[in-house]
Amino acid sequence: MPYRAPLKDFRFLFDKIVGLDKVAATDRYAEATPDVVDQILTEAGRMCEEVLAPLNWPGDRNPARLENGVVRTSPGFDEGYKAISEGGWVGMASDPEYGGMGLPMTVATAVNEMMSAACLSLQLCPMLSQGQIEALEHHASDELKALYLPKLTSGEWSGTMNLTEPQAGSDVGALRTKAEPNGDGTYKISGQKIYITWGDADFLPNVVHLVLARLPDAAPGTKGISLFLVPKFLPTEDGQPGERNGLRVVSLEEKMGIHGSPTAVMEYDNAKGWLVGTEHKGMAAMFTMMNNARLGVGVQGIGVGERAYQHALAYALDRTQGKAGGSGTIVEHADVRRMLTHMKADLFAARSISLMNAVAIDMATATGEASWKARAALLTPITKAFGTDVGNAVAHEGVQVHGGMGFVEETGAAQFSRDARITPIYEGTNGIQAMDLVARKMMDGGEAAFALIDELEKTAEAARSTHEDLAQKVWDAIQALRETTEWLVDQDMQSRFAGAVPYLRGFARVLGGVTHLKAAVEGESGRKALATFYIDRLLPEHEAHFAHARGGDEGLYLLTLDDLAAA
Amino acid sequence: MPYRAPLKDFRFLFDKIVGLDKVAATDRYAEATPDVVDQILTEAGRMCEEVLAPLNWPGDRNPARLENGVVRTSPGFDEGYKAISEGGWVGMASDPEYGGMGLPMTVATAVNEMMSAACLSLQLCPMLSQGQIEALEHHASDELKALYLPKLTSGEWSGTMNLTEPQAGSDVGALRTKAEPNGDGTYKISGQKIYITWGDADFLPNVVHLVLARLPDAAPGTKGISLFLVPKFLPTEDGQPGERNGLRVVSLEEKMGIHGSPTAVMEYDNAKGWLVGTEHKGMAAMFTMMNNARLGVGVQGIGVGERAYQHALAYALDRTQGKAGGSGTIVEHADVRRMLTHMKADLFAARSISLMNAVAIDMATATGEASWKARAALLTPITKAFGTDVGNAVAHEGVQVHGGMGFVEETGAAQFSRDARITPIYEGTNGIQAMDLVARKMMDGGEAAFALIDELEKTAEAARSTHEDLAQKVWDAIQALRETTEWLVDQDMQSRFAGAVPYLRGFARVLGGVTHLKAAVEGESGRKALATFYIDRLLPEHEAHFAHARGGDEGLYLLTLDDLAAA
Repeated sequence: MPYRAPLKDFRFLFDKIVGLDKVAATDRYAEATPDVVDQILTEAGRMCEEVLAPLNWPGDRNPARLENGVVRTSPGFDEGYKAISEGGWVGMASDPEYGGMGLPMTVATAVNEMMSAACLSLQLCPMLSQGQIEALEHHASDELKALYLPKLTSGEWSGTMNLTEPQAGSDVGALRTKAEPNGDGTYKISGQKIYITWGDADFLPNVVHLVLARLPDAAPGTKGISLFLVPKFLPTEDGQPGERNGLRVVSLEEKMGIHGSPTAVMEYDNAKGWLVGTEHKGMAAMFTMMNNARLGVGVQGIGVGERAYQHALAYALDRTQGKAGGSGTIVEHADVRRMLTHMKADLFAARSISLMNAVAIDMATATGEASWKARAALLTPITKAFGTDVGNAVAHEGVQVHGGMGFVEETGAAQFSRDARITPIYEGTNGIQAMDLVARKMMDGGEAAFALIDELEKTAEAARSTHEDLAQKVWDAIQALRETTEWLVDQDMQSRFAGAVPYLRGFARVLGGVTHLKAAVEGESGRKALATFYIDRLLPEHEAHFAHARGGDEGLYLLTLDDLAAA
Repeated sequence: MPYRAPLKDFRFLFDKIVGLDKVAATDRYAEATPDVVDQILTEAGRMCEEVLAPLNWPGDRNPARLENGVVRTSPGFDEGYKAISEGGWVGMASDPEYGGMGLPMTVATAVNEMMSAACLSLQLCPMLSQGQIEALEHHASDELKALYLPKLTSGEWSGTMNLTEPQAGSDVGALRTKAEPNGDGTYKISGQKIYITWGDADFLPNVVHLVLARLPDAAPGTKGISLFLVPKFLPTEDGQPGERNGLRVVSLEEKMGIHGSPTAVMEYDNAKGWLVGTEHKGMAAMFTMMNNARLGVGVQGIGVGERAYQHALAYALDRTQGKAGGSGTIVEHADVRRMLTHMKADLFAARSISLMNAVAIDMATATGEASWKARAALLTPITKAFGTDVGNAVAHEGVQVHGGMGFVEETGAAQFSRDARITPIYEGTNGIQAMDLVARKMMDGGEAAFALIDELEKTAEAARSTHEDLAQKVWDAIQALRETTEWLVDQDMQSRFAGAVPYLRGFARVLGGVTHLKAAVEGESGRKALATFYIDRLLPEHEAHFAHARGGDEGLYLLTLDDLAAA
């Protein structure tokens, strides 16, 4: 099944909904003129459609495998990776000083979505490098930067994140990997890490691992964690891969999806590493990497969802069954139409949120203003959780549109659902995202949230003159968001946590209502029809989410463990 | 992971919620005393826990395969099937005249749920035989009954359903398989059928196919379809498998889940068949089979969901992560608690609806009353769609509770999600169920629905004296159901279809609210805590469903095909 890059949607969102012009008006991103952005999107879109998209299905059928210690990758992935790195897409948002394109994150986010849609398993490789590049840009010494950033930015080498250990998943603070000073400014790293995405690959001359570990004098918990750079091959003086370091891939996981992405168990045995940032401050450095990775994972969900949608639509436009009107295919049946419209409406909502998030990141980078930083921080868990929830729901519905054919692997619909399944889990489960939203992101007493709500109100208000009915419904939803947020910031943590996930879902529903409303105002008739569907039929869900969110923790714990186990 | 048969829940539902005593008070089911039922559940539960449950995971890892025309089944499935048939569980609800136990469908439904939970792939084999037995009991000639029913009821032979052809899925009327009279009362059947569950198996001495086909003079569409019985081996005079018939398994599908269940493409080439029922009335006979199969598939969803829940709970009770209170495991974290409680609350709602449905079937069988028949007919699509939606949602959340471990196949959580995925599709997609609910099941102008709603109101009213707050919320929800139903029966078909799925979902949410309310009144504190969670936090979803349902078709088709395809 071909993939069509949703360029029109990105252009519309950039121009009319999220305001890329604000970003292009800053000195930092002055080069991101509409023409340039258009050219970049077109070129990335072409690569995704022509080079990456055909690799997706073979990757599922021929998983990466470990053969005598070598990670053999899926057919064509070497060529696909070459296209990504040679196109400059690994370093598209990175510092031009080290070879990056220096593009706004907003544009990079659109490209990342398209690459995820085309081939999620392969896209994970450059996505992790991007995160590593950003962590090094912010925290590494000049020497490390000079040595590693050019290689990572060009995609010649790739980067990984090593956080998880068997006993330390969501609770990173429980990790045990050790780092001991060698006395020469380097460290000996020993321990086992699991779930290391693209831990190695036969087409990569070197892989650079960022590893969280504990120094001998480290405090327990997250305050005693430091970050180390540990390359597979130690670079020679002229920056070529030299001596083999003390690390290896022990095994690869057999997973429900993303079979083309090697998920490694890594063993570090007195591997040589370099400290990144300050001792015991590894979590802060890691958070730099994770925040953008979270945006990245959110758009992975959207990308896979978009592809699942296109796949389902193509099937519905082709399949005849029963007495359908119009085209004579099942797309004319009301229930099939409902499914497809629901999918498209949710994808638009999620995509608009992800780009709103990226604009905030760019504005924060370009202006350094605290309010933009807070906006970006607030939106990141919403993008991650809503984007991946939507990706899963859409992929699930895509299978449903196919009927029995959807359950047969041959049609490819099932793969999207299996691939999407990881996205609400990794880079912090969606539960963790929601807890981040209601705790860390509300430490300001809700200031960032209320500032956003004020803006949402203005958008709804402005739409009244032309779209009174829709604007009123969205206005009411915004009021519900405001009231629930006011309630939330008065609660203790346990009560917030009990309703964190439904609160995040309701928040996203309302945000999507506002961007759809704006699309109805700014767009053609199709945009308005989609917005009306969303606002009339999906937006009302926010009420149930907020009712759920306000349930609090008391009622939750009334059910004892014995009650839960009763059968 | 072991499985624990939820016997307490069944007993509570039988005694306090769905009223099995009504069924046991009829002549037909007078033997189904509480003691007997208890003994049966205990015995079935033991088989499911000890014999069937251990086969589930090996079945996933070692799919059924076709080897030189022979369907080789997964390890241990032969022994598992032997336990099911020798225990009498194939024919548990069948006519004692042919060796059945004659149990109420209510009890059989509980047993079917447990068998599905233990090993869905294997349970499909007896489930299809049960459907075939019922179709033959109602429509076959005495000769066919005498020859086949004892073998099918004992489980010595198994039965299949052959409806689907590549061009005829949801639109059964498009099928092309031909039947020509041989002149001796038998027919020659030729054609290809797909998605034939348990089309053959190496442990079965004979397989009996019920095949929908067209006679030479048949009208087009569903009015020209007849039903034929076509055995793999033609029975000899003493009822043993004799000459091989003209049919074969061409291939098996590679599926997302239920790997242990062989899904066959069947080729019929002048195979000898016998007419079941009347010429051109095959659909009516097939509906007998399908209606109960739909109840059966609904409880498959619930069964797999129950197992996924138990699996996730066990993990949450064992896994330590972060600063959890109480037991020190992640079950103490509010968001994990929320997920598990949500799962359990939905499973109870779905199970109670399925058993309410089964009671209606039993009462219809025992009394012949039209109102019970209408009740059973009304509830069947709700049980099927809601039960399977819940099964999928719960299995999805079960993966989420496991975090990264859920995505790794080794832990088994992913299998439940992959297995459950077929249940909203087969036996009529959930979209078809919803259309059946709003069209065929409302042809009475909503009479059956309003009769049920009247009863729901009585239950809510009765609960007021002890549970005023919960009762009021449920009462309000019932009013919303009534108003939406009143609106619905005034709509034309296109408008009903546009909102059919959300209407069904809202209906189920309200039904679940009523059974939870009853459980709060009748049960211990744990039941009340669970009911409060459901009524406060999940029941409010009905409003969004009904708003969606009332959207109508006009707005849906405002979005053109070009709009849908725009990217």
